Amino acid sequence: MHLFYSPDIEETLSLPDEEAAHAIRVLRMGVGDEIKVTDGRGKLFSANIVSCNKKSCQIEINERTEVEPSWYSGVHLAVAPTKMMDRMEWMTEKCTEIGFDSLTFLDSTNSDRRVIKTERINKTAISAMKQSHKAFKPEIHDITAFKSFINQQFDGEKFIAHCYGNGSGSLISEGGSTPSPFLYDVVSPDVPSLVLIGPEGDFTLEEVELANKAGFRSVSLGESRLRTETAGVAAVFMMWMKKRISQ
Amino acid sequence: MHLFYSPDIEETLSLPDEEAAHAIRVLRMGVGDEIKVTDGRGKLFSANIVSCNKKSCQIEINERTEVEPSWYSGVHLAVAPTKMMDRMEWMTEKCTEIGFDSLTFLDSTNSDRRVIKTERINKTAISAMKQSHKAFKPEIHDITAFKSFINQQFDGEKFIAHCYGNGSGSLISEGGSTPSPFLYDVVSPDVPSLVLIGPEGDFTLEEVELANKAGFRSVSLGESRLRTETAGVAAVFMMWMKKRISQ
Repeated sequence: MHLFYSPDIEETLSLPDEEAAHAIRVLRMGVGDEIKVTDGRGKLFSANIVSCNKKSCQIEINERTEVEPSWYSGVHLAVAPTKMMDRMEWMTEKCTEIGFDSLTFLDSTNSDRRVIKTERINKTAISAMKQSHKAFKPEIHDITAFKSFINQQFDGEKFIAHCYGNGSGSLISEGGSTPSPFLYDVVSPDVPSLVLIGPEGDFTLEEVELANKAGFRSVSLGESRLRTETAGVAAVFMMWMKKRISQ
Repeated sequence: MHLFYSPDIEETLSLPDEEAAHAIRVLRMGVGDEIKVTDGRGKLFSANIVSCNKKSCQIEINERTEVEPSWYSGVHLAVAPTKMMDRMEWMTEKCTEIGFDSLTFLDSTNSDRRVIKTERINKTAISAMKQSHKAFKPEIHDITAFKSFINQQFDGEKFIAHCYGNGSGSLISEGGSTPSPFLYDVVSPDVPSLVLIGPEGDFTLEEVELANKAGFRSVSLGESRLRTETAGVAAVFMMWMKKRISQ
């Protein structure tokens, strides 16, 4: 069973062009066929196709369901993008499969990339949401300067993951002395959480200090030396596990 | 600082051809330069290059260190491979970054792929081990028939992850009635653990029953509908978190 995405379905009573083309041209659906549609904000619709051509698809809604997310409170990630876009795409895909609320890209001192096409990342998120049968599309935000982002209002707990003080787990020590607590141990199940993930060269010590002053607690993702995109998935997975609603 | 891999370094006192080429031709290292080398079985060596040409590199060992893994007991994964090899490669890369002991590919009823080049997967594991500064290379095993694999001797606890009974978290229910326990809740920190991950079409009910009879406990990876490769990473991450040696 395929799930379609139509953010404004209740007003338009139709599928967006790309979704319509997929339904009609790829899946060869037609008038009378039943489809499931989500608005990406927690609503699931059972609908029937009432008219269609190769580019458009009108539907009537039979049933509306409010879907509960599988996690309490918010799971927010902000990450300095990698040079290779495919790594950011798969991070987005995996985080969406697991379940999270928003992704912001950070322009930090050691960032390998200062421009990112969020449109492409948004498409990846939509595709992963549909594939994993979720009714929640994460919000994808444009790249933001680190110093500006850390001073934005965030209603919840804030963390910055970095490697300073965690040299002991690496074969090749990278300095620092104060180990940070493990994210999983300190994240709260019931208030929104935001984690910052640095670029391959990590945040600078100055950035860590600025973030700490702005209320971001330093955390570790464990003793493994993770690539940026793996760290992003690990952070989301730890937050999701802690906030997971067991069924 | 680069880490090199030489499984028989204590006997050969040299780097394998590819590693030598990387050191000499790519990194332009030469006689006298200090390098770090691991045997992939927990030993780390500090060494100096004593002679080299474009294809070979002889070294002398200055120091041997036994590295402790960052996890207790064994983390073992057996997975029905996806059609697309790149998804198995990145699963291997991510699991190696996190830390695990062995990977076996399963030929199961709904498998999309019955042949896999483990040589390529092994190279991915070596590269991820070096990149993440680890001294442990996971063992990569050839593809094995499901029914044969589940009857092999395994000294530890055995789990099979599947979606039967976990339909409630998906928007589009897929049947089954008995929910399985969450892997993280039941995995032991101090005995080796093995988890089986099915193909996109899941294990068949018959396979699940056979595995249950062979001592594999049914588990869930949570309410999210995960792709095979995401499920593999999630299972390894949960086992690693439970067995993690905090430092």
